[in-house]
Amino acid sequence: MKSNVFSFHIKKQGPASSRLGVLETPHGVIKTPAFIFCATKAAMKCLTIEQLKACDTQIILSNTYHLMLQPGPEAVRHFGGLQQFTGWHGPMLTDSGGFQIFSLGHGSVADEIKGRRRMGQKTLLKINEEGASFRSYINGQEYLLTPEESIRVQRYLGADLIVVLDECTPYHVDKSYTKASMERSHRWALRSLSAYKKEDNGSQKLYGIVQGGTYPDLRKESCDFVNNHSFFGHAIGGSLGANKQEMYDVVALTMSLLSKDRPVHLLGIGGIRDIFEGVLQGIDTFDCVHPTRIARHGGALVKPWNRSHDLKREHINLRNSQYRLDNNPIESDCGCATCQNYTRGYLHHLFKIEEILAFTLVSQHNAYFMNNLMKMIRNALETDSLMEVYNIWCQNMQESQLNVSNTVSCS
Amino acid sequence: MKSNVFSFHIKKQGPASSRLGVLETPHGVIKTPAFIFCATKAAMKCLTIEQLKACDTQIILSNTYHLMLQPGPEAVRHFGGLQQFTGWHGPMLTDSGGFQIFSLGHGSVADEIKGRRRMGQKTLLKINEEGASFRSYINGQEYLLTPEESIRVQRYLGADLIVVLDECTPYHVDKSYTKASMERSHRWALRSLSAYKKEDNGSQKLYGIVQGGTYPDLRKESCDFVNNHSFFGHAIGGSLGANKQEMYDVVALTMSLLSKDRPVHLLGIGGIRDIFEGVLQGIDTFDCVHPTRIARHGGALVKPWNRSHDLKREHINLRNSQYRLDNNPIESDCGCATCQNYTRGYLHHLFKIEEILAFTLVSQHNAYFMNNLMKMIRNALETDSLMEVYNIWCQNMQESQLNVSNTVSCS
Repeated sequence: MKSNVFSFHIKKQGPASSRLGVLETPHGVIKTPAFIFCATKAAMKCLTIEQLKACDTQIILSNTYHLMLQPGPEAVRHFGGLQQFTGWHGPMLTDSGGFQIFSLGHGSVADEIKGRRRMGQKTLLKINEEGASFRSYINGQEYLLTPEESIRVQRYLGADLIVVLDECTPYHVDKSYTKASMERSHRWALRSLSAYKKEDNGSQKLYGIVQGGTYPDLRKESCDFVNNHSFFGHAIGGSLGANKQEMYDVVALTMSLLSKDRPVHLLGIGGIRDIFEGVLQGIDTFDCVHPTRIARHGGALVKPWNRSHDLKREHINLRNSQYRLDNNPIESDCGCATCQNYTRGYLHHLFKIEEILAFTLVSQHNAYFMNNLMKMIRNALETDSLMEVYNIWCQNMQESQLNVSNTVSCS
Repeated sequence: MKSNVFSFHIKKQGPASSRLGVLETPHGVIKTPAFIFCATKAAMKCLTIEQLKACDTQIILSNTYHLMLQPGPEAVRHFGGLQQFTGWHGPMLTDSGGFQIFSLGHGSVADEIKGRRRMGQKTLLKINEEGASFRSYINGQEYLLTPEESIRVQRYLGADLIVVLDECTPYHVDKSYTKASMERSHRWALRSLSAYKKEDNGSQKLYGIVQGGTYPDLRKESCDFVNNHSFFGHAIGGSLGANKQEMYDVVALTMSLLSKDRPVHLLGIGGIRDIFEGVLQGIDTFDCVHPTRIARHGGALVKPWNRSHDLKREHINLRNSQYRLDNNPIESDCGCATCQNYTRGYLHHLFKIEEILAFTLVSQHNAYFMNNLMKMIRNALETDSLMEVYNIWCQNMQESQLNVSNTVSCS
């Protein structure tokens, strides 16, 4: 690993605020806009590193919260960090652990909206100025996550890009809670930055997080805060509202206020339309469990021209009996190993018999699909055709049902 | 697919009755002795076809019983047969469906010995001269499997090598039942042969099955029967006894009585020591779910020189906490993609968090291991060193615990 080779260059501006960039890390270069896949517990679900590489994956992320509990940061450090541990030697990002603690603690935004209560599963014990204490879902052990501890754990994990600890402010709270929470998150960000700088050896870069919920004045305050501190990049976190339009509005406002020279990550967003809207606002990287999660339920992403007219979603469901005798691949114009070798009918069979291989094969398609989508977007930026590509992909796309896990982010 | 290219040649005789051979099929050549992997429901559990090929797999089998029920023979034929359906374009074998019907019906030999009752799961309804009727475990529908129907289904499935329907005689029955059952299986074999010949277009070859349980005179009668009919190859089925020595004795006797010019398959056997003993008796092919099944429970096969002295089994268990911080691959001298890229400690982590990727990675190692074992055996036959290799692999090997599913076969 070479250290001190971090950089972010904007190669070209596109329509609206879109931009083509290059994010350099010690483990390799990420061409942006890019999608970051979730290897939550230091493993991509159902995909080997070789399969990930064959899909032209550029960067993956792992979750600090899960890895704190199992196998523990000391164990990952023992193996030489996440890249050595997982066998993925490309760029990586870790989150701060905050999102899982708070979403498990408060219950998720989806839970709120759908009126679900998860009282039995609450693991968040206390939030105060010091940090957040929570109980391990594995063995009940109590943990205290402070900004300093999050940075220590992320240093042991060793990803290239790391993020400050923040409180993932829920959607249902009022403005005064959102403001107080944002201000505490800013204080935590400063403590994170200070802990980071104390041990900085050039092998990691720190992202600040913009909070402020759906309130324009708070978002502005938070943008000013991150702009004024020496973060390498920015991530947009906190509640983005309860529907797509609110999300697009919050992202547009936030992006108009963020400094233009740092890479910006949009946390937890991975719908196709959402990616296009984000790219137009200048977002450089996205992450979401959506592409691999739907794969395990039979959902295979398909390009607009490969969808039947009545399909309202971005994917087909291979469990559907209409595919039982279908001799075609998921997409006949797809270059992934799944589309090269397997039919929809065979994949349908694998789901019917609940064969794990089904998860692997559709995850492989969806990973390739997302990387290919981002490649196409970059190519369109290169050739000044982003709006044409946008129109093809988004103009006839029906608004999908409100899918909160997919549309509303929380850092 | 070229038809009419079936052949079996013995290239060289080795020590005892061992032999190096070549089994040619329309889908490719199998160098023998060879191991046949179980792709039970038209899929290798947790492995893609690309991964199977990368492990140098020569041939796989699927089970007629499962495929009759789901997706059904007509569906497989619609896709052009198993090879087109699965994407595996190499040689394949299907069994007759008998083993599953009878083992699910009677309960398995392991159930008998361990005194387990599975009354609730019995699906076998009736066996008579016509065939066996059973109930689908999927939807309760009644099926009648006759020799003619088994051949029809196997023709639709389209594997290169197919087998006659027989009754899988259980271990607990007395000699008179075993004899009567064997005689009925012989009549069923003749009906299978006749049904096969009626539609034979040169694309499949039929194996006869030797029955007779642990009774030498019945085994002799059954060997005479198969030798005297025009089967392409022979499979050794029925009960092979309740322990390894009984199995070795039954196999040795049977092999001494079978004609030498046809390939011989030993059904359901896949322990390393058992394979060596079988090879010495002249067995050409083996199959067993063991290597891939133990993989899903953390069992990784290791060569004798990679085992610690106190290990009594042929595999290590990666779930064991001793591997938590182990920086080594499963085997440092293994060429598989798992050993090239992942440590025991990482695999341990994947099992701890119950990540499906663990199953894939260890299955990949075990598949490579088995293919490599057979390659080594063939190489030893080529270079006149089989007994040295046998001694290295088997002399210090403790008798593993009686593992019935692994040691006692039933066609």
